[in-house]
Amino acid sequence: MYRTHTCGELRISDAGKVITLAGWVQKTRDFGGMTFVDLRDRYGITQLVFNMETDAGQCKLARELGREFVIRATGLVAERSNKNPNMPTGDIEIFVDTLHILNPAETPPFTIEENSDGGDELRMKYRYLDMRRAPLQRNLMLRHRMAQSVRHYLDLRGFIEVETPVMIKSTPEGARDFVVPSRMNQGQFYALPQSPQMFKQLLMVSGYDRYMQIVKCFRDEDLRADRQPEFTQIDCEMAFVEQDDILNTFEGLAKHLFKEILNVEFPGKFAKIPYEQAMTEYGSDKPDLRFGMKITDLTEKVVGCGLSVMAEAEYIGGIVATGCADYSRKQIDDLTEFVKKPQIGAKGLIYVKYNTDGTIKSSVAKFFDAAALRGWAEVTGAKAGNLLLILAGKRDKTLKALGELRLEMGRQLNLMDKNKYIPLWVVDFPLVEWDEETKRFYAIHHPFTAPKPEHIPMLDIDPGKVHANAYDLVINGIEIGGGSIRIHDSGLQKKMFEVLGFTDEQAQYRFGFLMNAFKYGAPPHGGIAFGFDRWVSLFAGLNSIRDVIAFPKNNQGRDVMQDSPGIIDDEQLKELGIRIVTSDK
Amino acid sequence: MYRTHTCGELRISDAGKVITLAGWVQKTRDFGGMTFVDLRDRYGITQLVFNMETDAGQCKLARELGREFVIRATGLVAERSNKNPNMPTGDIEIFVDTLHILNPAETPPFTIEENSDGGDELRMKYRYLDMRRAPLQRNLMLRHRMAQSVRHYLDLRGFIEVETPVMIKSTPEGARDFVVPSRMNQGQFYALPQSPQMFKQLLMVSGYDRYMQIVKCFRDEDLRADRQPEFTQIDCEMAFVEQDDILNTFEGLAKHLFKEILNVEFPGKFAKIPYEQAMTEYGSDKPDLRFGMKITDLTEKVVGCGLSVMAEAEYIGGIVATGCADYSRKQIDDLTEFVKKPQIGAKGLIYVKYNTDGTIKSSVAKFFDAAALRGWAEVTGAKAGNLLLILAGKRDKTLKALGELRLEMGRQLNLMDKNKYIPLWVVDFPLVEWDEETKRFYAIHHPFTAPKPEHIPMLDIDPGKVHANAYDLVINGIEIGGGSIRIHDSGLQKKMFEVLGFTDEQAQYRFGFLMNAFKYGAPPHGGIAFGFDRWVSLFAGLNSIRDVIAFPKNNQGRDVMQDSPGIIDDEQLKELGIRIVTSDK
Repeated sequence: MYRTHTCGELRISDAGKVITLAGWVQKTRDFGGMTFVDLRDRYGITQLVFNMETDAGQCKLARELGREFVIRATGLVAERSNKNPNMPTGDIEIFVDTLHILNPAETPPFTIEENSDGGDELRMKYRYLDMRRAPLQRNLMLRHRMAQSVRHYLDLRGFIEVETPVMIKSTPEGARDFVVPSRMNQGQFYALPQSPQMFKQLLMVSGYDRYMQIVKCFRDEDLRADRQPEFTQIDCEMAFVEQDDILNTFEGLAKHLFKEILNVEFPGKFAKIPYEQAMTEYGSDKPDLRFGMKITDLTEKVVGCGLSVMAEAEYIGGIVATGCADYSRKQIDDLTEFVKKPQIGAKGLIYVKYNTDGTIKSSVAKFFDAAALRGWAEVTGAKAGNLLLILAGKRDKTLKALGELRLEMGRQLNLMDKNKYIPLWVVDFPLVEWDEETKRFYAIHHPFTAPKPEHIPMLDIDPGKVHANAYDLVINGIEIGGGSIRIHDSGLQKKMFEVLGFTDEQAQYRFGFLMNAFKYGAPPHGGIAFGFDRWVSLFAGLNSIRDVIAFPKNNQGRDVMQDSPGIIDDEQLKELGIRIVTSDK
Repeated sequence: MYRTHTCGELRISDAGKVITLAGWVQKTRDFGGMTFVDLRDRYGITQLVFNMETDAGQCKLARELGREFVIRATGLVAERSNKNPNMPTGDIEIFVDTLHILNPAETPPFTIEENSDGGDELRMKYRYLDMRRAPLQRNLMLRHRMAQSVRHYLDLRGFIEVETPVMIKSTPEGARDFVVPSRMNQGQFYALPQSPQMFKQLLMVSGYDRYMQIVKCFRDEDLRADRQPEFTQIDCEMAFVEQDDILNTFEGLAKHLFKEILNVEFPGKFAKIPYEQAMTEYGSDKPDLRFGMKITDLTEKVVGCGLSVMAEAEYIGGIVATGCADYSRKQIDDLTEFVKKPQIGAKGLIYVKYNTDGTIKSSVAKFFDAAALRGWAEVTGAKAGNLLLILAGKRDKTLKALGELRLEMGRQLNLMDKNKYIPLWVVDFPLVEWDEETKRFYAIHHPFTAPKPEHIPMLDIDPGKVHANAYDLVINGIEIGGGSIRIHDSGLQKKMFEVLGFTDEQAQYRFGFLMNAFKYGAPPHGGIAFGFDRWVSLFAGLNSIRDVIAFPKNNQGRDVMQDSPGIIDDEQLKELGIRIVTSDK
């Protein structure tokens, strides 16, 4: 060992000991006769002291140390005269006898501090330096701790960790697969799994009863802000269970993590909200319940009004922003711009200000008298001083827009407290949704999700109305995980493939082995998968998953540190039996 | 829940309870008035009883149950009159009130028993059925338990689990990479990691100090008997350590696993044997020390003899097989065939039988007198009744052949007790080896392995003689893991790349980011990686890793259950910018 102690562990009780530390130079301060060096490792920072009078040689060497030099220092632990109560090691310092430079360092391209002066791109390129910073070390420690805690909790409850394969068969349904050309089977490809879905179901067929794995998954999608081509799931499956068994088990896991990691306790059960209610009240299937501001349906209230945009709308709904009656023209204009953004797509924003002096001001005052506007206040619960914001249009789209507007108002009014956590289950999702473009139904979760038993007859008549035995765990507006009870009956699975428009051949080619497996005694089963990156970032108080991943990729799917992906040589292409054809670009 | 208890937990103390079980029908026995059903789940087997007199309906239903039907049964726990002491639940049975068939099953293509009647290929195709068998369930439970135990042990010792990326840059050195064409960066490829080697070294540069991960690795090799294209490593790295720190830490891990999993204790330290000694004494860099039978160098003993094959040999060595002096002509012929196999490549086998009656019989009696042959016995320690087996030829090749012959004799003489474990460290490996074909040196471990400090000057003169700070953990002749102290000095790393014949551009393209990282303060560090599949199979008492992997691939790299790899459609190929070119096949 190059050290006897770490830089985080020496205390006043160690005074008088001769010890050896090793680590990185955080900073040096030169006060003429004395030179101080802050020595850093993963465990903390300890102050080293060099004295020009007693040992000029070592002191001169210390003065030449640059930031991030790797050194080893042996010396005496001494009580500090000038204690630093902000550091665990702040009561002591080391009078260094012997200093060794283990490795010098070039000056880093940005500061290795709590807040760095480096830009995003530069820090990504030098990720190994960025990762020295305390925030990233905290994030990765948190991730480590959560991973151990998850496995330990599930292990105690009889879950078996089984490693499922990374090179599997390509069965795309939804996102694109990444593929791996096979050299031994030229012209054929493996796929990287979007999830171990089929394998975990097979494990249930195999009688493993309870399965868990923290596992990498892959999706070749055009990357939006907070997506990574490879990401990590906590993947679980249970046999002989119904929906509530799964919710109870994983509500237990969530509570355990909250308690063990954040010391947050939830005495009662998590709320359980049907999908339809979540959409109607919050305009979202992942409502942030840290604040109210529910959506009120005003459609009935405007019947027969003279404003065509309202009179002809399929749906009209509003939210009440408390204390915002004094919003300026500029603020209202900004909100209007916000809802008109293409991602949100509202045509315009209607407002009613219920002023504290009892007056009412509205963008639709021409079309509604004060009594009508007071009537809206009554339904929506708007009080004096409040601002009523209204959108009109197609029902689903308008609800989603209202949901976005609600979140925006939550941000503006600081209603999203990072230290407050409101978890809930969203249940009763639709089973399938119709796609106008391809004229077929798509599975909302995946093709193995079981319909509610009482809805099965509707599969033949109106599949869009069928509810699934599916559930999401949502915390603070973030979908942390989701799952479903699976179809375990091969007849029902076949019917489901029909609804999704798969021919027998397609179903057989893609999922044949699973359908076959189900013929040999499949137990009732269901499961759930959690987005581990997201869960860690939620607990870390971050908005992005990037900084809870050691070596993330950028929005072009590139690792700018490695400069990957890269070219491979012609010999290897030939062995793989493929040729690059990029002429049409 | 579909059950109140599992099929493994009911005991005599539960008699009188009404319970519900769910599981698979192991077998049914029909005795006219009574029908017995053995119900199986992961946890055990419980006997269900149906009585024709008291409930003819349920009993008739029970009679129709086929093997592997999934059922649920509710009934009364009762003491058995005819107890089965071989089953934990053997004291009780269930008088079933209500039987539900949850899912019928077609007759499985082979028996789901401890020993199945199915052939290898059939069982691979129906892997999900094979995995129901108790041996596979035991193997996967063992794997689960070992994984938890490894992480727990390392977690307690400050190791952080960090997930390294699966899609990385292709930097082949040694085995071929699997590659993943990038859609967003057409013409470029990611590679799947052969190991997270560079990432774990970067983590040390980043100050993470102690890293661990149980991680999938990938090698596109022509598959030998016991290789898988994807396999699992226990991957670890430590900073500020020397070789002995790593050996001590992971000897601790190994002892912990032996104790916790197998209840085997090792009081002393593991033996530490230099590579050169292992080769000289056992003809192997992974000697099986469960038995002796060391190789003796006889080269000096035959100087000037009249037999050209011996007189001209660079090296002559022998092993003594105890009690084999009475080997028949046929047995000796078989051994001769064995050493002449192309994989072993000896030219022939020389033997000396030291008979119990004091006579000596040898294939080279013509060339050596009895005194000479007695002299050999003296050096080799051969006693009356023993058989001395001798090979001659080039030194390295002959030693390896003797090593193989030693193992063969160990097998024939039953010296390899599966319940005996002898772990040891092999140390002081050569750093590089010369390849005649490509006329360059190759790294024995990998290009980041540090030479012994005292050997560094020899890098310029005679690289082949340089020893590495590298080590393997060997148990019972199986290399369970290996690692090294890494080069942390960029100057020395550059020199190493020169020795390996990399141009500056090649080194920069492949490892540039690592060499750059080392400029910013790399700590001394080293690590180790264990073959997790092999370790589990060793503990399971298996010769192959296939049955400790849930969904393995066959020798052609195919998953015959999924029928993977498979074709992908033209649209996807076009998006990836590649074309299949297999015309030359």
